[in-house]
Amino acid sequence: MKTELSRTLGIEHAIFGFTPFPAVAAALTRAGGFGVLGAVRYTAPDDLARDLDWMQAHTDGLPYGLDVVMPAKKVEGVTEAEVEAMIPEEHRAFVRATLAKHGVPELAEGEASGWRITGWMEQVARNQLDVAFDYPIKLLANALGSPPPDVVARAHDHGVLVAALAGSARHARHHAEAGIDVVVAQGYEAGGHTGEIASMVLTPEVVDAVSPLPVLAAGGIGSGEQIAAGLALGAQGVWLGSIWLTTTEAELHSRALTDKLLAAGSGDTVRSRALTGKPARQLRTEWTDAWDDPAGPGTLPMPLQGLLVAEAVSRIQRHEVEPLLGTPVGQIVGRMNSEHSVQQVVDELTRGFEQAVDRINRIAGRSSQ
Amino acid sequence: MKTELSRTLGIEHAIFGFTPFPAVAAALTRAGGFGVLGAVRYTAPDDLARDLDWMQAHTDGLPYGLDVVMPAKKVEGVTEAEVEAMIPEEHRAFVRATLAKHGVPELAEGEASGWRITGWMEQVARNQLDVAFDYPIKLLANALGSPPPDVVARAHDHGVLVAALAGSARHARHHAEAGIDVVVAQGYEAGGHTGEIASMVLTPEVVDAVSPLPVLAAGGIGSGEQIAAGLALGAQGVWLGSIWLTTTEAELHSRALTDKLLAAGSGDTVRSRALTGKPARQLRTEWTDAWDDPAGPGTLPMPLQGLLVAEAVSRIQRHEVEPLLGTPVGQIVGRMNSEHSVQQVVDELTRGFEQAVDRINRIAGRSSQ
Repeated sequence: MKTELSRTLGIEHAIFGFTPFPAVAAALTRAGGFGVLGAVRYTAPDDLARDLDWMQAHTDGLPYGLDVVMPAKKVEGVTEAEVEAMIPEEHRAFVRATLAKHGVPELAEGEASGWRITGWMEQVARNQLDVAFDYPIKLLANALGSPPPDVVARAHDHGVLVAALAGSARHARHHAEAGIDVVVAQGYEAGGHTGEIASMVLTPEVVDAVSPLPVLAAGGIGSGEQIAAGLALGAQGVWLGSIWLTTTEAELHSRALTDKLLAAGSGDTVRSRALTGKPARQLRTEWTDAWDDPAGPGTLPMPLQGLLVAEAVSRIQRHEVEPLLGTPVGQIVGRMNSEHSVQQVVDELTRGFEQAVDRINRIAGRSSQ
Repeated sequence: MKTELSRTLGIEHAIFGFTPFPAVAAALTRAGGFGVLGAVRYTAPDDLARDLDWMQAHTDGLPYGLDVVMPAKKVEGVTEAEVEAMIPEEHRAFVRATLAKHGVPELAEGEASGWRITGWMEQVARNQLDVAFDYPIKLLANALGSPPPDVVARAHDHGVLVAALAGSARHARHHAEAGIDVVVAQGYEAGGHTGEIASMVLTPEVVDAVSPLPVLAAGGIGSGEQIAAGLALGAQGVWLGSIWLTTTEAELHSRALTDKLLAAGSGDTVRSRALTGKPARQLRTEWTDAWDDPAGPGTLPMPLQGLLVAEAVSRIQRHEVEPLLGTPVGQIVGRMNSEHSVQQVVDELTRGFEQAVDRINRIAGRSSQ
């Protein structure tokens, strides 16, 4: 499964995997794909350096990438405390009431809330980059618009390709104008932040919009036949995020959450603003239902919503409060029904891809197949 | 482009087209695809007979089908007047106010409202079938659940395959249990009534759910590469509806509506209950915005909403009131940017399909390609 982009990067399969877990990213790279480590949780540069050291030691010199969250618009000199002060008391009360209704315990003394707004602030992302460019990363992805011009230039100076996610052809054109090298077309069915346009329509639109820049198809891809579909739509590779959550290398640290993912059907996700304030696909839970209920106070805009719910989400996860327990995941969760190693998943993807190619050749009457 | 199903039906390309226009259905059949004529607007059996006579005279003995709307649940002895009486005055006032705000003129004396609830009632569909089985139709599709068992049996007695639309694997399994022969997997991005699951995820789920029954991929398909994607996902053919709306054979009878379709982007549709009371994808207009506005009275359940808005929709269409003028259409409307004949569309679809197969073979390293 080779495209111009996969040849440029020197990988065997044009399968890109986004994951917050170094063990998953490294295993995907070792399996011939391209692991992309999500950096948003590394608020301390030393933690990122430690995990990139680990990646270096476990990728056999094969290529991998890093995904940062760097807003295109700079917000100068705003502190977390100032943002905290913008949250209405009504919303804080709603968080308390919803947690109380489900008897969610407090965090223990000294347990930190996992998610912090700081991971979304430009200076934090820049500190991450200062670390990252000391490592031989081959691709830098940005989940929130195009990165600033100086970051693109710095990446290019280091020989690092820059990728950015797009939910519409218009976003994709902005990325192309900003000097981005690879556009990830993120369809409606994807986990995490998504727009309204489904992959079947979005992928070829983005390909047309930015050609000859390479496009990766993201959203709805978790099998070899879905890879074949994404590549038939003009993509130079596929970008998978959800599928890795139920691999044996994933460090979800919650048996209850893993079990929920394994049990969920494709109709059990929702595109909700509950997590960050922007629409993001995730497991539908009583938590997302509460925020999406017209009778409630509704969600706040990004970044307020993320800050508002950060501690609550940590408490729900820490205590595995099943009805509220969720995670960003795409509609392919319906097919994530058993746990496998990353290598097994890649083997299944490539085998399924070959079968889909056989099938399409039979339909096309290509008898040599 | 041949599959087991296309061979069974004796067609050259596994391209199925749903359309309310006999000229489009006949042209698609003549072009080597399979035209399916939508029957919902034929409340008078003689009108259907007239158009099926025309189809017979213009399809060169090639196969075509009919699409009826037959609710699985029978509502005995309820008259249109009784249903009318269930509509709250608040909703009628909202219709009047919205039309008045946009200065929509009345219909002229004797002009009938186009859409009537009667087209959705089982007895009307049964009268249509009494006519249809006198013609050599090869496929009977039902847009609203599985048809009643006696209708399935009657179709099979006539050697007619029965198809039904499904928006989830669960729906598809119900169809299989009801003896349906072909399942149309209707993805989120499709025009008309749709569920939440996008085609990339839905198609293989439905294929798995009803195998070995043949599945047609519907939703997001308007190019040869999208056909290749749908077939790679396991479908035995594709089902296209939107793409025909801007063919030269389509009888929209509204230049303003055709121009809106040609100008619309993929983000200009909305899944709204405004038209029928069930979520149906259509052009987003000030009419759908009014119904979807939380400040308004909201929509009524099917069939009340359709009855409530029938005359209003006729007035909007008759007088081409641009801000309110819409139609069911899928997200591929973004690629419907010029008018072509049905034959030209089919040529472009098959050419694009071959190119997509070439491309996927290059990626797969099938050097003989």
